[in-house]
Amino acid sequence: MSYFAGIEAVQYEGHESLNPLAFRHYDPTAMLGDKTLEEHLRFAVAWWHSFAWEGGDPFGGRTFDRPWFGSEMDKAKAKADAAFELFAILGQPYFCFHDVDIRPEGASFAENTANLEEMVDYIGTKMESARTRLLWGTANLFSHRRFMSGAATNPDPDVFAFSAATLKTCIDATAKLGGENYVLWGGREGYETLLNTDLKREREQAGRMLTMVVDYARKIGFKGAILIEPKPQEPTKHQYDFDVATVYGFLKDFGLEGEVKVNIEQGHAILAGHSFEHELALAASLGILGSIDMNRNDYQSGWDTDQFPVSLRETTLAYYEILKAGGFTTGGTNFDAKLRRQSLDPEDLVAAHVGGMDICALGLKKAHAMIEEGSLQAALEARYAGWNDPANTAMLTSDLATIAERVARDGINPEPRSGKQEKLENLVSRFVA
Amino acid sequence: MSYFAGIEAVQYEGHESLNPLAFRHYDPTAMLGDKTLEEHLRFAVAWWHSFAWEGGDPFGGRTFDRPWFGSEMDKAKAKADAAFELFAILGQPYFCFHDVDIRPEGASFAENTANLEEMVDYIGTKMESARTRLLWGTANLFSHRRFMSGAATNPDPDVFAFSAATLKTCIDATAKLGGENYVLWGGREGYETLLNTDLKREREQAGRMLTMVVDYARKIGFKGAILIEPKPQEPTKHQYDFDVATVYGFLKDFGLEGEVKVNIEQGHAILAGHSFEHELALAASLGILGSIDMNRNDYQSGWDTDQFPVSLRETTLAYYEILKAGGFTTGGTNFDAKLRRQSLDPEDLVAAHVGGMDICALGLKKAHAMIEEGSLQAALEARYAGWNDPANTAMLTSDLATIAERVARDGINPEPRSGKQEKLENLVSRFVA
Amino acid sequence: MSYFAGIEAVQYEGHESLNPLAFRHYDPTAMLGDKTLEEHLRFAVAWWHSFAWEGGDPFGGRTFDRPWFGSEMDKAKAKADAAFELFAILGQPYFCFHDVDIRPEGASFAENTANLEEMVDYIGTKMESARTRLLWGTANLFSHRRFMSGAATNPDPDVFAFSAATLKTCIDATAKLGGENYVLWGGREGYETLLNTDLKREREQAGRMLTMVVDYARKIGFKGAILIEPKPQEPTKHQYDFDVATVYGFLKDFGLEGEVKVNIEQGHAILAGHSFEHELALAASLGILGSIDMNRNDYQSGWDTDQFPVSLRETTLAYYEILKAGGFTTGGTNFDAKLRRQSLDPEDLVAAHVGGMDICALGLKKAHAMIEEGSLQAALEARYAGWNDPANTAMLTSDLATIAERVARDGINPEPRSGKQEKLENLVSRFVA
Amino acid sequence: MSYFAGIEAVQYEGHESLNPLAFRHYDPTAMLGDKTLEEHLRFAVAWWHSFAWEGGDPFGGRTFDRPWFGSEMDKAKAKADAAFELFAILGQPYFCFHDVDIRPEGASFAENTANLEEMVDYIGTKMESARTRLLWGTANLFSHRRFMSGAATNPDPDVFAFSAATLKTCIDATAKLGGENYVLWGGREGYETLLNTDLKREREQAGRMLTMVVDYARKIGFKGAILIEPKPQEPTKHQYDFDVATVYGFLKDFGLEGEVKVNIEQGHAILAGHSFEHELALAASLGILGSIDMNRNDYQSGWDTDQFPVSLRETTLAYYEILKAGGFTTGGTNFDAKLRRQSLDPEDLVAAHVGGMDICALGLKKAHAMIEEGSLQAALEARYAGWNDPANTAMLTSDLATIAERVARDGINPEPRSGKQEKLENLVSRFVA
Repeated sequence: MSYFAGIEAVQYEGHESLNPLAFRHYDPTAMLGDKTLEEHLRFAVAWWHSFAWEGGDPFGGRTFDRPWFGSEMDKAKAKADAAFELFAILGQPYFCFHDVDIRPEGASFAENTANLEEMVDYIGTKMESARTRLLWGTANLFSHRRFMSGAATNPDPDVFAFSAATLKTCIDATAKLGGENYVLWGGREGYETLLNTDLKREREQAGRMLTMVVDYARKIGFKGAILIEPKPQEPTKHQYDFDVATVYGFLKDFGLEGEVKVNIEQGHAILAGHSFEHELALAASLGILGSIDMNRNDYQSGWDTDQFPVSLRETTLAYYEILKAGGFTTGGTNFDAKLRRQSLDPEDLVAAHVGGMDICALGLKKAHAMIEEGSLQAALEARYAGWNDPANTAMLTSDLATIAERVARDGINPEPRSGKQEKLENLVSRFVA
Repeated sequence: MSYFAGIEAVQYEGHESLNPLAFRHYDPTAMLGDKTLEEHLRFAVAWWHSFAWEGGDPFGGRTFDRPWFGSEMDKAKAKADAAFELFAILGQPYFCFHDVDIRPEGASFAENTANLEEMVDYIGTKMESARTRLLWGTANLFSHRRFMSGAATNPDPDVFAFSAATLKTCIDATAKLGGENYVLWGGREGYETLLNTDLKREREQAGRMLTMVVDYARKIGFKGAILIEPKPQEPTKHQYDFDVATVYGFLKDFGLEGEVKVNIEQGHAILAGHSFEHELALAASLGILGSIDMNRNDYQSGWDTDQFPVSLRETTLAYYEILKAGGFTTGGTNFDAKLRRQSLDPEDLVAAHVGGMDICALGLKKAHAMIEEGSLQAALEARYAGWNDPANTAMLTSDLATIAERVARDGINPEPRSGKQEKLENLVSRFVA
Repeated sequence: MSYFAGIEAVQYEGHESLNPLAFRHYDPTAMLGDKTLEEHLRFAVAWWHSFAWEGGDPFGGRTFDRPWFGSEMDKAKAKADAAFELFAILGQPYFCFHDVDIRPEGASFAENTANLEEMVDYIGTKMESARTRLLWGTANLFSHRRFMSGAATNPDPDVFAFSAATLKTCIDATAKLGGENYVLWGGREGYETLLNTDLKREREQAGRMLTMVVDYARKIGFKGAILIEPKPQEPTKHQYDFDVATVYGFLKDFGLEGEVKVNIEQGHAILAGHSFEHELALAASLGILGSIDMNRNDYQSGWDTDQFPVSLRETTLAYYEILKAGGFTTGGTNFDAKLRRQSLDPEDLVAAHVGGMDICALGLKKAHAMIEEGSLQAALEARYAGWNDPANTAMLTSDLATIAERVARDGINPEPRSGKQEKLENLVSRFVA
Repeated sequence: MSYFAGIEAVQYEGHESLNPLAFRHYDPTAMLGDKTLEEHLRFAVAWWHSFAWEGGDPFGGRTFDRPWFGSEMDKAKAKADAAFELFAILGQPYFCFHDVDIRPEGASFAENTANLEEMVDYIGTKMESARTRLLWGTANLFSHRRFMSGAATNPDPDVFAFSAATLKTCIDATAKLGGENYVLWGGREGYETLLNTDLKREREQAGRMLTMVVDYARKIGFKGAILIEPKPQEPTKHQYDFDVATVYGFLKDFGLEGEVKVNIEQGHAILAGHSFEHELALAASLGILGSIDMNRNDYQSGWDTDQFPVSLRETTLAYYEILKAGGFTTGGTNFDAKLRRQSLDPEDLVAAHVGGMDICALGLKKAHAMIEEGSLQAALEARYAGWNDPANTAMLTSDLATIAERVARDGINPEPRSGKQEKLENLVSRFVA
C-alpha cells in the first residue's frame, strides 16, 4: 500500500502549467550546454528530513503522522519503501542518508552494525529496481546522548572509539551502496563553554580522526570524495568547522587540503554571516568545492531553519559560482530541507521538493545564460585590466622599497573608479526578473 | 596651555576610593606573580579614537570641539601635544597610531611622506621626555577615497603601488619610533559585492603584499612582531581577514604562519560571532596570539561600537586565556575604544580610560587568582583524564578498522558524564562576584 | 551645464531591452486595474541620498565628487538644479527632502529659516516648470551636534524649543510646496544608555511634540498625512519608534491613532527583526499604513545599508500587502536608498533608480496578478472557513466556562490540518519565477 | 527514596565560603531596606525546565536520566515528589508550572482535566507540609500538535475552543493552589508565513481570548495578577507578543492595560533586540511591570538558550529598575532557566539554582546600594534640571508657533552638554567590580 497514494510521477509540463505537482522548469533531459539538467543539478533527497524527522521543535513534539515511525526493523523497512516511492515520484537521481536515518537504534555497537548492514542490503536490493543512486552517506554522531560532548573531540576516549568504529561502518555502508561522496558534519564537534574545553586537544583529535577517515576510505578503495560540512554553531555554542575558511585552515594544518573538500549548506553559510555564494566562491578559489546542501535559512531566525529554497536570485547566484567553477563532479544538489512542521500531508512532501527542484533548475538556467551572455565576466575583467600591464604585474614580485621609489618618482596618485555595483545588480535582474 | 587643564595625573587610590579620576584597581607597580601590573597589561592609548575622531556617526557630524582639529601641520603638532598630556595624566606605558592620525593629509605620496617624517621627528622628540613608548604603528589604507575599493586587493594596480609605498613609510616610522609591533588591519580588503570581485585574485594580492611587508620589516631590521587584525565586515560587506581561523588559513597558504601573528579585538570577535575568549584561545592554540585591542561591542548593535570595557567577567575570561598562553611578549592591551559622541568633555576622555584600565587590571588579577587557585584547570584535566591511559592514547595513531574491532570486542558503550558547566560558571563567579 | 550630460530621459522599452538606462517594466502610463503604474507606485526620489550624501562611511570620508558640494547658497541652488535634472531624466512624479538637504546650515534658527525660505522659493519656482511634486518633507533633527542627545526628547529644554521651532518651519515649507505628507523620523529620539535617561519623561516629551505637530499642521490647513517612520536603533542604542507595533502603542497612548500613520522602511523593518511585509500587513490591519521608504537592507550587516531593491519576490510581497490594503492614498514609494560609495558616476545614480523603479513596477504587476488570480486569497479563506459557522463565531462573545462545557460535552478534540506553506510559496513562485 | 540523596539543604555561608552548594550572597532572612532578601527577590523554581525537560535539542534527544520520566500518573507524582525535594533543598519561596508539566497527557479534554485535578490535589497536599507557594500557573498551549497553528489565534475554531477550555482549567488550578499570578505565553500565537495568515483576524481572536481570561479570573475571585510574557519569535517566525511595547499597544487596543501586566524574560528581551533593563524600565514607565523570568540568553545564539544568569552587572541593572519601580508586589524572580543538556547530575540542578540565586541576590544588594548612595539618580536629575524652569515646562502646553517665536526672539541656540556615559558606567563599576 502506498503512502503517496494518488500522487503520480511528477512530469515536466513547462512554465505555463498550473499543476502544483508538475515541474515548470526542471526538464531532466533538456540539454544545457553539454549536459542535461539532471546531469548538472544532480538532485538528492535527504532521508533524515523527508522520512525520519517527526515535525518536532524545541517547543513542541511530533506533528507528522507517518505509518513508519517507530523503532522496529519493519518500520525501518517501511520507511525505505516510502522513500523509494517518493524517489519514483520525483525522479531525482540521488539520495543521501545518515546511519540512524535508515536503521533502528541498537543497544550496542554490534547491534547498530547488524541493523545497519541489514538495512544496507535492503536498500541495495531496492536500488536494483530503481534509478536512484547514493550521492553520499554519513554517520550521525550527534543525536544519541553518548555524543552529547562530541564524537571525535569527546573528552572521553571511549566515545572517540565508538565514533571511529561507527565511522568505519558508515564508510563501509556508503561504499557498498556505491556512494559518490562521504560527508562529515561535526554537529557536536565544538563546545558549550570554554571553561570545560581543551580547544587545542580537541582540534587535534578532530584532525586525527579525519586523517583516519581518509586513510580508511582509500584503503578500502572508496573512490568518492570526502567532504566536511561547515557550520558555525547550533547545537553547540561553537562548532570547530565554522565556515569554509576555517575548514581550509584546518585541512592545511593536517595536510589534508588535497584529500578533503567541503559540502556547503546555504543555511549554514547564512548562520556564519556569509552569503551562500561567498562560501561557494571561496571554496572554488581554494580548490575545495565539493557538493552543496541546498536549502534556505530565514535571515532573521538565528537557528537552522532548513527551508526549501524559493529565491530565484539566490539560486541563480549560487549556480553561477558553481558553473564558473566547472560544475559538479562527484557533488550534487542535496535538499537538506525540511517541511514546516505544519505541513502534514504526503502531498506537501512532494510539493516542497517540486518547488525546490524548479527554483534550482531555473536558477541554473539563468546562471548558464549569464555566463553565455558574458557581460558580467567582461565587466569583471575590465575592472582588473590594469593588472595586464607588465609594469604592474611586476609589482607582485617586487618589494616595498622599490615600489615606493616608483610611486615617488612617477607621482602615482590613483583616482578611484566607479565599482558599478548597481549596474551589475541590474544586469542580474535582467536575467532573473 | 593645557587641554586637560585642572586634571591631575591619575593615582592609584585603592578600591575604596570615590574619586572618579583615580585608579581603584590598577596599581602599575604592584606585583602579580613575577611581573608588575604595568608589565602584564602593557596598556596603550589609541591616537585615532582619542585624538583624531571627531564624534561623527552615519547620521551626524562632529560633536567634539577640540582645538587641534584641522588639516594644518601646527594642528597636528597641537594634537601630539595634547596626546602626550593625556599620556602623562594616565601614565600608561604605550600608545598606537596610524599615519593619518599623526600627520596632515598631503596632496601626494611625497607630501604624505614628508608630513609623516616631520611628525615622527616631533613625536620622537616628545618621547625623549616622556615615558610612553610605541606599542605599534599602522597604515590607514581605508579612509582616503583612493582606497575605497581596497588597498592591497584593489583592482587598480596604482592603488596597490600607493599602498605598498605607504606601508613602507609606516613601517619606517614605526621602526624609527621604536615600535614593538607593526599591525595591519585591512578595512577595505574585502568586497561589497561578489559581482565585481575576483576573490581569488584579490586574496593572492593580499598574500603578496603581506609577504612584502614581512620581507621589508626584516630587511630593515625591525625587531617587532607583525600582526594582522581580523574583522568580519564593516565597512565592507565581507573582509578577507574575517576572524582568527580565517587568518590562520591565509597565513598557512602563504607560508607566513611563523612570521605573522594576530591582534585580536573584542568587538571584532563579537561581530564575527565569537566570544573574545574564543578568539584568544584559538590564536593561542595555533601559536599566533600577538596582542589585543581591548574594547567592547554592544552585543545587539551590528556595527563596531568600540566602547570602553565594563564587564569584569569578560575581562577576567580574556586575561585568563592570555595568562594561560604565557602573557604578552611584544603585545599589549590597546584601548581601541572611543568615547560616546555625547561625551564632550576633556574629563570624559580621562574617565573612560581610567574605567577601562581599572576593569582590565581587576580582570587580570581575578584571572591570575583563578590560575593560582587551580580548580578550573583541575576540573579540565579531570575531564580529559581518560586520555592518559595508553590504551586510549594509542587510538590516536591507530586506524578505524582496528578501533572498530576493539569497540566490538570489548563492547565499548560509553555512558555520558556531566559537563558541569554551571558549577564551573559558579566557580568563576566566586572570583568575579 | 548639465551634471548628467549625455544621459537622456529614461524611456520604457519593454522587457527585451538591453539598454541599461531604459525601463524594462515601468511603463508609467500603462493601466493596471483602474490606475496607471505611475498612480499606483507614486515614486519619489530622496534629496538626501541622491544629492546630499557624500559617500562617507564610519571608516572613510567623501568619495563622491559633486560640483554642488559646499555650504554656500549657490551650491544649494546648484544642487537643486541637478535634482530637477535627475527628476526630468527619471520622470518620477515625486521627491522628498529634509530641511538640511536643501538649505545651507546657518548660524542660528533665524538664519536657518531664512535659508530654508529662500530655497523653498527657489524649488517652488523650479516645480512650476517641472512635473515633479513633493511627496513629503521632513525636518532633520539628528545631524547637527545640538541634537546629539535628542530633539523632542532632549534633556535640555532649549533643544526641545529649537526642535519645535524647526518643525514649524519644515511643516510650513512642506505645505508651501504642496507636500502630500509630512514625515517624522526620530533618529536621535532614543538613548545610548539608560543610565543617563529618564525614559518616561522623554516618551512624554515625544508625545507632546507630536501632538503639537498635529495641531499646528491642522491649524495652518495642511491637508497631507502626518507620518512617523519607525526604526529600532542606529544611530542610538534604542529608538523610541522601534517598529510599527511600538508606534501604534505610542499613538494610542497619546490619542493620536486617528491622526498619525506610519512611513515604513524596508531596511528599518529588517533591523527590527521583521519582514517588510509584516510591518506593512500590521500597519494595514491597525489602519495606520501611510507610505513606504523602499530600499533593501543587507540581512547580514547590522546597520542601515539603504541599498536599492533588487529582489522581485520581496517587492511583490510588499506590494501585495499594499494592494490588499487598497493601495496608496497620500503615500508613495520613496527610494530611501543610496548608491554604494564606490558608485561614483552620474550614470550610477540614474541606473540605480532605474533598476529600483523597474523591480518595484514588476513586483506591483505580479502582486496585482496574484490578487486577480485569487488562489492565495482563496486558500486563506478556506483555512479560516470554520469561523463562518455561527456556533463558532458565537464563541467570540462567550466566556471560558461556557466554552469549556461545550468542549467537554461535545468531546471536541481537534485534529491539526496542514498549513500548506510550501504549496503557497510555490504558488508565489509561479508568479515571480 | 530521594533523588537528591546526599545533598543537604543549602545554607547561607557568606562570600568566603568555598562550598559550591552554599549560598555566598543569598541570606533569605537578611534585611535590605524594609524587606528581607527573600521578600525582595521572591524566587521561584520552574517545573518545566527543572523536572519536565529531558535534555533534548534540535539535533539530539533526551540526555537526562530522571526516574520520573514517563507518561503515567505515578511518574507525575514521583516528579512532584522530586520537585518538593528540590524546593526543600533550595528553600526558595515559590514555584511555577504549566498544566502539562504536572499532569500526564490525556486522550481528551476531559482526561486532561481529570489528570490535572488529581495532580493539583496531590501538589496541594504536598504544599501543606512545605513552605513553597505558587508564584504562578500557566497553560501550555504550544507543545501538543493540536496547537501547531496557534491556540487562541488558530484558524480552526475547535482549537480556539479547546484552548479556552484548557485556560479555564489552568486558571482554576492556579486559583486552587493559591497562585499569586496567572501567566500567558503565546508560543504559537504568531505565524510561520503571512501567506497563510490573516493577521488582523488572529490578533482579534487573541484580544477576545485575553478578555475572556480576565473576565473569568475576576468572576471566580482570582486575586492574582494576569500577566503576558512577550517573546519576538521562536518557535514561530513571528509572535504577536513581540516585546513590551507591542504588548502595551495590544492591551490599549482591547482596553486591558489596567487589567493585564507583563512577565518579562531576560532571554526574550535579548531576542527582541532589547536589553533586559530596557524592557523593565519601559514596562515600569507604562505601569505594566508584573514579574520576571530570570535567565540569560547567549547574545550570539539566535535562539532561546535559557541559561542561568551569571553576570553581576546585568542582574544589578535589572534589579535597579525593579527597585526604582517599587519592587515586586505579586511578581517575583522565576528561574526560567535550564541546565545545559550535558549537566546530567542531580547536583547540577542544585548548583545551577544556587549560582543563579546568588548572582541575583548580590545584584539586588548592589542595586539597593546604588539607590541608597544616590549618585546615579542625582546625575539623572541634574541632566533634566532645565525642565524645572517654568518657562521651559510651559512649552509642554504651548504650540509650535509660539515656541518658534520664542526661539527667534531669544536667539535660542543650544550648546550640547556631555552625556557623561563613561563616568556613569564607571560609577556602576564602583559597585559591581
